[in-house]
Amino acid sequence: MRAVVYNGPRDVSVENVPDARIEKPTDALVRITTTNICGSDLHMYDGRTDVKPGQVLGHENMGEVIETGPAVDRVKVGDFVCLPFNVACGFCENCERGLTGFCLTVNPGKAGGAYGYAGMGPYRGGQAELLRVPYADFNCLVLPESARDNQNDYVMLSDILPTGYHATELAGVLPGETVVIYGAGPVGLLAAHSALIKGAAKVLVVDSIAERLALAEQIGAIGIDDTENTGAEQVLELTDGGADRGCECVGYQCFNCEGHEVPNLTMNNLVKAVKPTGVIGVVGVFMPNDPGAADELAKQGKIAFDFGQFFTKGQRIGTGQANVKAYNRRLAKLIETGKAKPSFIVSHELPLEQAPEGYRRFDAREKGWTKVVLKP
Amino acid sequence: MRAVVYNGPRDVSVENVPDARIEKPTDALVRITTTNICGSDLHMYDGRTDVKPGQVLGHENMGEVIETGPAVDRVKVGDFVCLPFNVACGFCENCERGLTGFCLTVNPGKAGGAYGYAGMGPYRGGQAELLRVPYADFNCLVLPESARDNQNDYVMLSDILPTGYHATELAGVLPGETVVIYGAGPVGLLAAHSALIKGAAKVLVVDSIAERLALAEQIGAIGIDDTENTGAEQVLELTDGGADRGCECVGYQCFNCEGHEVPNLTMNNLVKAVKPTGVIGVVGVFMPNDPGAADELAKQGKIAFDFGQFFTKGQRIGTGQANVKAYNRRLAKLIETGKAKPSFIVSHELPLEQAPEGYRRFDAREKGWTKVVLKP
Amino acid sequence: MRAVVYNGPRDVSVENVPDARIEKPTDALVRITTTNICGSDLHMYDGRTDVKPGQVLGHENMGEVIETGPAVDRVKVGDFVCLPFNVACGFCENCERGLTGFCLTVNPGKAGGAYGYAGMGPYRGGQAELLRVPYADFNCLVLPESARDNQNDYVMLSDILPTGYHATELAGVLPGETVVIYGAGPVGLLAAHSALIKGAAKVLVVDSIAERLALAEQIGAIGIDDTENTGAEQVLELTDGGADRGCECVGYQCFNCEGHEVPNLTMNNLVKAVKPTGVIGVVGVFMPNDPGAADELAKQGKIAFDFGQFFTKGQRIGTGQANVKAYNRRLAKLIETGKAKPSFIVSHELPLEQAPEGYRRFDAREKGWTKVVLKP
Amino acid sequence: MRAVVYNGPRDVSVENVPDARIEKPTDALVRITTTNICGSDLHMYDGRTDVKPGQVLGHENMGEVIETGPAVDRVKVGDFVCLPFNVACGFCENCERGLTGFCLTVNPGKAGGAYGYAGMGPYRGGQAELLRVPYADFNCLVLPESARDNQNDYVMLSDILPTGYHATELAGVLPGETVVIYGAGPVGLLAAHSALIKGAAKVLVVDSIAERLALAEQIGAIGIDDTENTGAEQVLELTDGGADRGCECVGYQCFNCEGHEVPNLTMNNLVKAVKPTGVIGVVGVFMPNDPGAADELAKQGKIAFDFGQFFTKGQRIGTGQANVKAYNRRLAKLIETGKAKPSFIVSHELPLEQAPEGYRRFDAREKGWTKVVLKP
Repeated sequence: MRAVVYNGPRDVSVENVPDARIEKPTDALVRITTTNICGSDLHMYDGRTDVKPGQVLGHENMGEVIETGPAVDRVKVGDFVCLPFNVACGFCENCERGLTGFCLTVNPGKAGGAYGYAGMGPYRGGQAELLRVPYADFNCLVLPESARDNQNDYVMLSDILPTGYHATELAGVLPGETVVIYGAGPVGLLAAHSALIKGAAKVLVVDSIAERLALAEQIGAIGIDDTENTGAEQVLELTDGGADRGCECVGYQCFNCEGHEVPNLTMNNLVKAVKPTGVIGVVGVFMPNDPGAADELAKQGKIAFDFGQFFTKGQRIGTGQANVKAYNRRLAKLIETGKAKPSFIVSHELPLEQAPEGYRRFDAREKGWTKVVLKP
Repeated sequence: MRAVVYNGPRDVSVENVPDARIEKPTDALVRITTTNICGSDLHMYDGRTDVKPGQVLGHENMGEVIETGPAVDRVKVGDFVCLPFNVACGFCENCERGLTGFCLTVNPGKAGGAYGYAGMGPYRGGQAELLRVPYADFNCLVLPESARDNQNDYVMLSDILPTGYHATELAGVLPGETVVIYGAGPVGLLAAHSALIKGAAKVLVVDSIAERLALAEQIGAIGIDDTENTGAEQVLELTDGGADRGCECVGYQCFNCEGHEVPNLTMNNLVKAVKPTGVIGVVGVFMPNDPGAADELAKQGKIAFDFGQFFTKGQRIGTGQANVKAYNRRLAKLIETGKAKPSFIVSHELPLEQAPEGYRRFDAREKGWTKVVLKP
Repeated sequence: MRAVVYNGPRDVSVENVPDARIEKPTDALVRITTTNICGSDLHMYDGRTDVKPGQVLGHENMGEVIETGPAVDRVKVGDFVCLPFNVACGFCENCERGLTGFCLTVNPGKAGGAYGYAGMGPYRGGQAELLRVPYADFNCLVLPESARDNQNDYVMLSDILPTGYHATELAGVLPGETVVIYGAGPVGLLAAHSALIKGAAKVLVVDSIAERLALAEQIGAIGIDDTENTGAEQVLELTDGGADRGCECVGYQCFNCEGHEVPNLTMNNLVKAVKPTGVIGVVGVFMPNDPGAADELAKQGKIAFDFGQFFTKGQRIGTGQANVKAYNRRLAKLIETGKAKPSFIVSHELPLEQAPEGYRRFDAREKGWTKVVLKP
Repeated sequence: MRAVVYNGPRDVSVENVPDARIEKPTDALVRITTTNICGSDLHMYDGRTDVKPGQVLGHENMGEVIETGPAVDRVKVGDFVCLPFNVACGFCENCERGLTGFCLTVNPGKAGGAYGYAGMGPYRGGQAELLRVPYADFNCLVLPESARDNQNDYVMLSDILPTGYHATELAGVLPGETVVIYGAGPVGLLAAHSALIKGAAKVLVVDSIAERLALAEQIGAIGIDDTENTGAEQVLELTDGGADRGCECVGYQCFNCEGHEVPNLTMNNLVKAVKPTGVIGVVGVFMPNDPGAADELAKQGKIAFDFGQFFTKGQRIGTGQANVKAYNRRLAKLIETGKAKPSFIVSHELPLEQAPEGYRRFDAREKGWTKVVLKP
């Protein structure tokens, strides 16, 4: 089958690789119809991870089931399915509490597995014609037939919509509250979309890129231009002393207005921009170590965090990868009834063969390249 | 009236000061019968705050109501009461949500007030013969008559028992779980007591002082000797990969095994000792700035925090002063039925006039000086 | 002052009564600008309660503060305020947990007080020129200045919007879920509005009156015509086995399709129409005894409830009057940002002097008389 | 294999039946070492259900895994396991939310399956030498080795301890609260044990049988003698107006002091004995229809419920079978650390062959027959 393969830093190509196939009785085999390039794929693309050459990439996947193992009871050949980026077993201590992003089975020695990702277990990605789905009865979200004609909305259920929603869950957003979101990339925009769906009274999205802020405004949020690093002050003014809730949707690769990577920038700004007793949800990725980082703290995965301010304000932080299955059924209903339309972030649809161009231009943050959807 | 007055670093004395009196129609006047020296009083005593000379100290107070203002409806002269250390109004946005530690009324420009404490508003402390209690109907916990004969248990409802309990609430402790607590001082010990009352299966208390660890063992916890800074590793071994929950009961003035103040020591150890998806409750005090600190980060109230590890493990942190009123009624019932006995931490009962000696020896961490109770 | 006075069954008049005034230092005096007739006023009007002749009615009140008692700190003369229908003290065990609808202070011997209502304490109503507000700092919601020009939205914060919202809170509505609501009267319609604001995927409103169902459809809900008592079956079909959540917004005075009062009709239909593990929020009023009722069970305040079905389905029920203060700040923000527009239920605005006509025609369920707003 | 077989009302025998065996790749086969007779087995034994002759009974099972299907990954031959009475798939909408008592897969057309029980699907019971366990990776709780020597505690994890605990979860019991429990049978006693483990200040257990009340007192609860139907009044006196929480552990087969079955007795007493805003957890079984009942309401599965009182007090009810997997891991830890000792309810240990005698005497409520444990 054809698949997007990582060769080395800033080098991916579409290659022939052995077909994905049923390996265990609980597997399903899915013919991929839509698969996205994720912002977190760029960490690998940039050479900031230990991913090995030869890895098939892609963890935002959807398609049709074409074969099932003999122990698969629920999922049927012909089902149209969206796959959570987390690979999970369904029966470990974490899965049984709904914490499928921290499955203890699928990636021994760690908590959590994923398709086609550095350090997330032996699973090939879905930027390919075929995908093997382990524990298929647990992992497949079977979609309504209408999803076949609306793939760009439904494919977002694999990762980016539940991840944005997760930020608002970690932050505990309630109807009528004010939410500040750092980052107007795809995740931040879908966090804003989620907060508005939940009935937030006011959603403030902080970023420095005008076209992203325009997208935020388009969906009903308020864009806060941070090009002069005054975002937190603007939020304090607009919220009479701080937002009720905050969402971190940037991560450690955060650039300040001078273009330097400043990993503690968003968290310290959030502590400042959120009111006392407020809560901050963090879904932007922070790495436990980062050998390529500029300074000593960052190499160790540490940040210089305003903990004194954070404590004095009595704030809370929730972090971590989204447990996609905790939300994807309900979010699918919102797409079905037209209340969620996450495809507004899609800027480009490319055939699989053009994935390398998609990676290159998305990584270069070329103007207008917000989100790339691949069609194998 | 006689009162404990702060004169300057490591200098308190018992002085005659003007009597406390009713100043507003919602006030009550309380004759103090028991009042404690709190570990956080030592931050002032050590000169690590901006408290002004002349301040009457004391925020862990109990006594009898001897006068009420004309607008006081519930509290009656003769009631025996325990006062939460937080002064709170009862009607601001935070108080109405139960967040009385972050009252927006009583300390204008900040969130939260207290008796006799630096930066917590214009309220004199209760290490004195009399105390003015603002918003008395809201702030007084009226105790059963039997409390008069058991003051050393009930006085702990003013701060230290709810604060220990708050740590376990922030951490979300559930029956059957394993909890690791950093710090076996009075707060850590009462966090352990609280966790055990809640049905924790196993409570591990980490400290370097043998007599404190012995107290932890006495109430049913497991003491972990950290004198060689191996506490986190010991916890990982005893919990098969990490405790379910963690409590920080030390704060920024944390000393490592060489006797140096290392403000990030407990938090980074907790991130390590708590399992993925675990939650950490922080009630040890961290200051937003600390001019007297040794290094630049600490001066700014920052710590070098293992944020990458914290995020990767998908952990959560809750912080802040206890909202005493959220718990004090139920905790009083536990004292009344003999299920909570927080007085086990009391090492010394002194008359008010001996408060200076109590401060001196408690501050010196003299052997056996765990908790000092004053009797005006 | 002029006020709406209850004289006896189906007899109210506008009379001169002694002016409301400050009686206690914690009171405020409010000049009423808008006050509604509530569906629950009709229980009194119909003679189905023990309200005494001479009672001034009205518990949905808003206006301007014109005087404050000497112990009032927060509320100022000139503030434009909306008053929760619950009178509450702010300091009893229930108020401090936010359960202001069950205040233990204001109506001795019972839990909960209200303005101008049978059995809810000695408080005159606000269908009058002036209203005395007890515990003013706790009870007044101070509104933004813009509220003066949008009184018909903001006055709904006194009762009916928080009550509709409360139904959805008791039911635990989550984004993406399906909600069935029994009753398309004002409360049911605002429960539907609330569920949609919270991101419900599908809201089904069951009623037999076409014009009410049309209002439900107008705000984005789905109207279910129950004239042939097939509502529950229709819901089961549309939801593939039952709604996730249910709201009861009718109460004991429920009429079946033949026009008979059948107090268990809505609850048993909800048990049927809601899925196993679903939750039902009940805000329609059920009385603990009803001497005027048709059958023996109803006289005792009992209903023949499908408890076996309810248990087997593992459902839950939450009931009770709304704790208005738990929601009114956030709901005010939703009105301010245009996301909540509860005035869509208003059918008639009348001067206070025409209140008797308003009562008569609203009670007669005259076509088009959905909600009456009085302007003193 | 030998197994307890239902032949008809009050007639069970131990018979040779075909061996249980692996039928699907996700199955495990367990050699039963301990299995209990449950109070709910008596509903079948008494002929009050539609169970068919030939059914192998028994849903409280534990033993050793002796074979696993080819798709079983986690559970190994030789593991010592306790089986939740609920058979559940792990991947349906309810299972993925932790509601394993309402699995939508294992008992098509209904929500929830169980071993050896009327209407709960095609699963043979475990009062036998062997048991087939479907979806073994999801359903088996693997126990520590020490459990082999402490089977009478650990076997209670199959049903009765989680069921008692579930009552306290549905009721929302918090530390320091007062709890009233109707029923001092095995479930009620373990609800009391659970409430005490959770830190309830006072637990009141209402029953009419002296030896059961003695057991309640033995574990630290307060027995309330209801032989004159004054239980609710006694609770009101002891709790100053009502318990914070209530648990129903009797069900529809409730006998009043005259020995008549009165299905609404416990629920109406609980509404009375629990305070306004209190919550009631119901785990006693109520059937959706009961053809053998005495009166018309009961035949239809209805009860004459004090709904008016319930609503006016603003109470809540949660119901349903326990989702055993939601609690069994944590409860196992409490057994392991000696904090839970549910075997105190065991009155008789019998070999499997004596099961008929056990049934007969347990059903007759013979003095001293509290709980029967069978040893195949």
